[in-house]
Amino acid sequence: MDWRQKTQGYVEGLQDRICAALEGVDGKARFLEDRWTRPGGGGGKTRVITDGAVIEKGGVNTSAVWGELPPAQLAKMGPGPAEFFATGVSLVIHPRNPRVPIVHANFRYFERGDAYWFGGGADLTPYYPVLEDVKHFHRTLKTACDGHGADKYPEYKAWCDRYFFLKHRNETRGVGGLFYDNVTGDREARFAMMQSLGDAFIPAYVPIVERRKHDAYGEREREFQLVRRGRYVEFNLVYDKGTTFGLDTGGRTESILMSLPPLVRWVYDYKPEPGSEEERLTDFLRPRDWLAEG
Amino acid sequence: MDWRQKTQGYVEGLQDRICAALEGVDGKARFLEDRWTRPGGGGGKTRVITDGAVIEKGGVNTSAVWGELPPAQLAKMGPGPAEFFATGVSLVIHPRNPRVPIVHANFRYFERGDAYWFGGGADLTPYYPVLEDVKHFHRTLKTACDGHGADKYPEYKAWCDRYFFLKHRNETRGVGGLFYDNVTGDREARFAMMQSLGDAFIPAYVPIVERRKHDAYGEREREFQLVRRGRYVEFNLVYDKGTTFGLDTGGRTESILMSLPPLVRWVYDYKPEPGSEEERLTDFLRPRDWLAEG
Repeated sequence: MDWRQKTQGYVEGLQDRICAALEGVDGKARFLEDRWTRPGGGGGKTRVITDGAVIEKGGVNTSAVWGELPPAQLAKMGPGPAEFFATGVSLVIHPRNPRVPIVHANFRYFERGDAYWFGGGADLTPYYPVLEDVKHFHRTLKTACDGHGADKYPEYKAWCDRYFFLKHRNETRGVGGLFYDNVTGDREARFAMMQSLGDAFIPAYVPIVERRKHDAYGEREREFQLVRRGRYVEFNLVYDKGTTFGLDTGGRTESILMSLPPLVRWVYDYKPEPGSEEERLTDFLRPRDWLAEG
Repeated sequence: MDWRQKTQGYVEGLQDRICAALEGVDGKARFLEDRWTRPGGGGGKTRVITDGAVIEKGGVNTSAVWGELPPAQLAKMGPGPAEFFATGVSLVIHPRNPRVPIVHANFRYFERGDAYWFGGGADLTPYYPVLEDVKHFHRTLKTACDGHGADKYPEYKAWCDRYFFLKHRNETRGVGGLFYDNVTGDREARFAMMQSLGDAFIPAYVPIVERRKHDAYGEREREFQLVRRGRYVEFNLVYDKGTTFGLDTGGRTESILMSLPPLVRWVYDYKPEPGSEEERLTDFLRPRDWLAEG
């Protein structure tokens, strides 16, 4: 079996497992699938869940596309062959309960001519963070990394903190996780790492949802969530390379923008009350060594 | 009186007049002012109105800043002196009633060393467009342009259609208006044009608000408005040079992002019902010669 089949097969299998796990934890809504094809070669499966008991809006998408890189992408990527293959899974979950964190994950494999590389990661964005949950998320990802080298977790954790940073707000998007890109080298070993990290997504995230999904909240927490979701939009539309690159190079708009939250509020010069639970979040929006804490 | 004083004086006077006119049409809310100073020289007056009878959220900002261009801005602007002066007024109004159009306007003057240029414009974004209103808006702006050359309205109208275009949605932001940038030449004549166009803002927009502010709407129109506001966010964060440049070069985040709507919804693959009033909007989101219509 060639690398294209292997990586696409893994990605699509992971999509199935993640959708099943999320439907399980939601208990009410189901994913609806949109299949699309790319005129130049390949296509994708966009799966969206809305108005669940737990998930207000979420998407778990895969694609496997190949052929010739479009001119705009080619220009951005620099000299080299136009022939490419790319497959990946990308997901964002926006829970309804403000006490359940947003999660994003992405695992992808890219070929250009004879070159190939892997990229991906997973990161958590709580609005009412619980240190125990943050530690669980990071610990699960670290364990998955550690089998592939003790340097991996610290490197990818730091990369995630740098990548998911809102310069204009001087804060991280959330409490981080892992991020890596353009990772090449031994293909078997890199693919094994992709699988370990991909497999770690469900155990990293789902237990947190189970623990928090019945936590009480009211109008105040909901309003805070809507305002904070604005920062998520700002990051994705201003900084996220996958989003801006995708929109710029003729990607499928609805699949790319499924990451945006269902309902969002912008308030001029919003500041949480000093000493409030909302203000506590600020302290979580800077790089910290979670596994060394408390 | 030098050019810096003249242009800043005009801009601040226009801010006062526009705020007064908008408070008049709202009848309930007042603008609140935040003054800020720029460590390198100058500052601004950010005026925000929220939860009015007519205006759900709006901002009318001015600034006058000078000194040395920050390195990031200098790099983007290309070789030349670092010494600069910039003043301008920038406004966005998000009405509560979905039948009252959003408006944006901006008028600015820039000096770099001995060079100087003007930029600006005004554009309308209705969700339930009324042809008569669109024509009124364009006709008022055209009349203001015409005293400065018969070529101005067609040129700036076309520029506006090109600039306020969402490539990933294949639609214009709204029904356009005027847009111009880097306009230099006879300074007295250019400043006279800035004043004519700035002065045209109130008669171009306020009568439309007066005509529509009591129009009936329900949950359906409100939902459509929230979804369409998503496109406004997408434009401002992905394409608008003022926004992305401002965030990238350390502008005042809250003043820049006051343009974002108060409440926004993203729905996966939203499509208005065929034949509905909502679908009619599509036909308005492409460049049209409004003054030649019906």
